Amino acid sequence: MRRLLLSDCKEALKATSAEGNAEMRVHQDYPLNVGASAHSVRQKFITEQKNFYIRNHGSLPTVDVQHYRLTVGGLVQTSLELTLDELRAAFSSVTVTATLQCAGHRRDELAAIRAIPGEVIWSAETAGTATWKGVALRDLLQAAGLKKSARHVAFLGLDEISKDGERFGFGGSIPVEKALSSEVLLAYEMNGEPLAPAHGFPVRVVVPGYIGARSVKWLANITLQEEPSSNYYQARAYKLFPPHIRAETADWQQGQMLGPLPINSVICSLQPGAVCQAGQLAIQGYAIAGEDQRIERVELSLDAGASWLEATLTEQARRWAWSFWEASVQVQPGTYQLMVRAWDTAGHVQPENLESIWNWKGYLNNAWQRVTISIE
Amino acid sequence: MRRLLLSDCKEALKATSAEGNAEMRVHQDYPLNVGASAHSVRQKFITEQKNFYIRNHGSLPTVDVQHYRLTVGGLVQTSLELTLDELRAAFSSVTVTATLQCAGHRRDELAAIRAIPGEVIWSAETAGTATWKGVALRDLLQAAGLKKSARHVAFLGLDEISKDGERFGFGGSIPVEKALSSEVLLAYEMNGEPLAPAHGFPVRVVVPGYIGARSVKWLANITLQEEPSSNYYQARAYKLFPPHIRAETADWQQGQMLGPLPINSVICSLQPGAVCQAGQLAIQGYAIAGEDQRIERVELSLDAGASWLEATLTEQARRWAWSFWEASVQVQPGTYQLMVRAWDTAGHVQPENLESIWNWKGYLNNAWQRVTISIE
Repeated sequence: MRRLLLSDCKEALKATSAEGNAEMRVHQDYPLNVGASAHSVRQKFITEQKNFYIRNHGSLPTVDVQHYRLTVGGLVQTSLELTLDELRAAFSSVTVTATLQCAGHRRDELAAIRAIPGEVIWSAETAGTATWKGVALRDLLQAAGLKKSARHVAFLGLDEISKDGERFGFGGSIPVEKALSSEVLLAYEMNGEPLAPAHGFPVRVVVPGYIGARSVKWLANITLQEEPSSNYYQARAYKLFPPHIRAETADWQQGQMLGPLPINSVICSLQPGAVCQAGQLAIQGYAIAGEDQRIERVELSLDAGASWLEATLTEQARRWAWSFWEASVQVQPGTYQLMVRAWDTAGHVQPENLESIWNWKGYLNNAWQRVTISIE
Repeated sequence: MRRLLLSDCKEALKATSAEGNAEMRVHQDYPLNVGASAHSVRQKFITEQKNFYIRNHGSLPTVDVQHYRLTVGGLVQTSLELTLDELRAAFSSVTVTATLQCAGHRRDELAAIRAIPGEVIWSAETAGTATWKGVALRDLLQAAGLKKSARHVAFLGLDEISKDGERFGFGGSIPVEKALSSEVLLAYEMNGEPLAPAHGFPVRVVVPGYIGARSVKWLANITLQEEPSSNYYQARAYKLFPPHIRAETADWQQGQMLGPLPINSVICSLQPGAVCQAGQLAIQGYAIAGEDQRIERVELSLDAGASWLEATLTEQARRWAWSFWEASVQVQPGTYQLMVRAWDTAGHVQPENLESIWNWKGYLNNAWQRVTISIE
């Protein structure tokens, strides 16, 4: 299969309609890393492709569908090789509305208390919700037939990454139990349209509830195996370390391979340092439940945590998708430290402080979010 | 079916071997509520029946097996009625090592900051781990055949509770998705022995990862229904409210029905106020992951959170069972505020402070545990 590379990622930006979208911030041209502001992302429950964050580690392949083949191999009874048409014809289509969130979401707040060099300093922009259509991964796995020893499902994409003198595609894996859950898709549509090149055309994995990195784009190979993927982005990157570990003391064997995402909540309508008028103030944001749960409650404080009020969830919380919340409060002139925190249906809470969860790679920041604003 | 009541619960204590066990603390004679100290519970990975906490709301039935029948009804294709022998013969036996934990675990710490009247003031004693043997609930449900509208599985026990002029059995429910998970059992054995009367003889539900109250004892009826159980202990008790709600302002329609348990960790080897010798100090405890996860890491602080060290997990963390942890530290004379906190494989953390999770019924306390000790 050919790997066609877009040498100029600006073309990819154009292809996703992200270029010319004033709300999109380009963190890096190569690899292409782009996000809309949290405010922009919160405008619609379903995030348009042009507002959906793009997080890449290598090239952005333009895949020729005529030559595209998806393979399933490793610890299976029968290896499969499918064209896109065969994939669509052989398996029922399934639709799931699910939020994807990058492991590096809200890294900027962690970096503010101790530097995190070499990583993209994302704010709360790396989350988005789409209606994904594709085939259930488990249908494909059942067609291939799993051998008993198969414990992990590894994915490999068609992008090309150069690192430490090697060239390889982005990869990762999820446990077989998760892979057999009905919400895990091989998606070929996003919000009723084919995937844009930057979002994984023609087929990407969508693993609701897991860090975005497991939702491998430009999917080429699925391999059933006993151990997690040995790909750099499973075996080395995307690992969580305790707060006291530093880059120079990290033992890569010890870190925790990331998978499920913890509960999170974000204020979208107000940026730190915002200056607003006294009177009635509308505050809006989103909240994302822990894997497999729903948001139960969102609380907002205007006085740095001394007192809390319940925000209103503006629609029924659903599994796999974020919840939107809003509150309207009367404010007098002065300085306010806003804080937001959420609960989900498993009683999960967010950590109170950044210090307790700081980690040298800057992953999984879900501390109570603090935003200081002024009222005139 | 007859409901035989033990008028004297002391007999039940004897029957569970709890009487004469100096480690067991009787909180209430009727209903019988008994727990061992956290120190005692931590002695063995598998908790002996005589050390396993007992949490009742009504009578303690002595069930005559000759007359025992388990029924499955409601939204099913075929209603079932089974004797104990039929249950054992018709379905394969399944064994799961699982921790049960009461929703009121560590209520004493919440009550210390604001009173919680009318509830049993448990410490960290209401957790225990047993090897449960029985039949998978899902096998029984598949035999009955679920109607499409069945969304909740309600359980009703043979105990008798008097409340507000009514007499009824203890009940509760779990969602169908959880009921169909392989870990949910109808258990008839605990650690290789028949269940003691106080632990639900002849059959109890075991719902790993959920609050203990859903593991209904002396199980008589299983009912498939569209809505959660309307039993007092599902519809009114065991509901979680935000910190600002008080008994007099609580709207029972608003509380969150409890189900999955959040991550927790406990220091077992040292009680608050303990006085120890300077030198090497061994500290031990347990940690319980969020539902469906494993413990990843336990951290201990000796200086009220200024610095943290990683405790050693003394065995491979398993799904559904607690993890034991230990640490050995060098201590000089002085006063130490110990703190413990854990992470699980979904990145769940514990809340830092009691204030953020205080609720007027005293449920789900999983704040970082603080134990102040003196070294001489």
